[in-house]
Amino acid sequence: MGAARAIVLFGHGARDARWREPFDRLQARLVALQPDVAVRVAFLELMAPSLAEAVDELASAGAQRITVVPVFFGVGGHLRRDFPVLVEDCRAKHPGVEIQATGAVGEVDSVLDAIAGFCVGAMSRHA
Amino acid sequence: MGAARAIVLFGHGARDARWREPFDRLQARLVALQPDVAVRVAFLELMAPSLAEAVDELASAGAQRITVVPVFFGVGGHLRRDFPVLVEDCRAKHPGVEIQATGAVGEVDSVLDAIAGFCVGAMSRHA
Repeated sequence: MGAARAIVLFGHGARDARWREPFDRLQARLVALQPDVAVRVAFLELMAPSLAEAVDELASAGAQRITVVPVFFGVGGHLRRDFPVLVEDCRAKHPGVEIQATGAVGEVDSVLDAIAGFCVGAMSRHA
Repeated sequence: MGAARAIVLFGHGARDARWREPFDRLQARLVALQPDVAVRVAFLELMAPSLAEAVDELASAGAQRITVVPVFFGVGGHLRRDFPVLVEDCRAKHPGVEIQATGAVGEVDSVLDAIAGFCVGAMSRHA
């Protein structure tokens, strides 16, 4: 039996395998912070697993509550149109699992603050 | 005469105009933090201005040092291949301006920490 709670970090995906490195680092950070939570990455396209595959695997392993976090900066067609449909499909397939989706991380104040801080630091080092 | 120092927030771009909202919010935050610095957004594709257009405008206004920050999560073909060429083109066109490029914000520890913190908070609220 796996963890009852799970987080899925949902990204766009890309052709270059190295593109996923920040997702893997984020996953490792979350596992360190929350060892009792199953943490998975999943992708919209070009990389595996898909969101459906990740949710299927978590549900099979016993997850009861899954929080899906879109790791996107901007909110365009992918998140406005495609993502809600994918989440609904997962809910329909797994009615016994609570599946919650958050907003995009690029819309979170603390994330924007961290990026702004990085920009200021980078400019200061560029003296 | 404009600011001597500038930051360009460089994003991918998208068809949906609302996609750029986090970039505009980030720009506003940086302007508040660094009122003496010119802050611009620029895009790889689908949105204007391009990096070249933003740098041309800043150089014309008197910028002497420009820090370009790729606001991307993953580092794939766009940042590994296209971005360095775009930056070199800007340097060739404006030899009197120091143009520095940072790594992608998705590779910055403090940004990953902020995202991880958001994920943990979202999961906790999903009780």
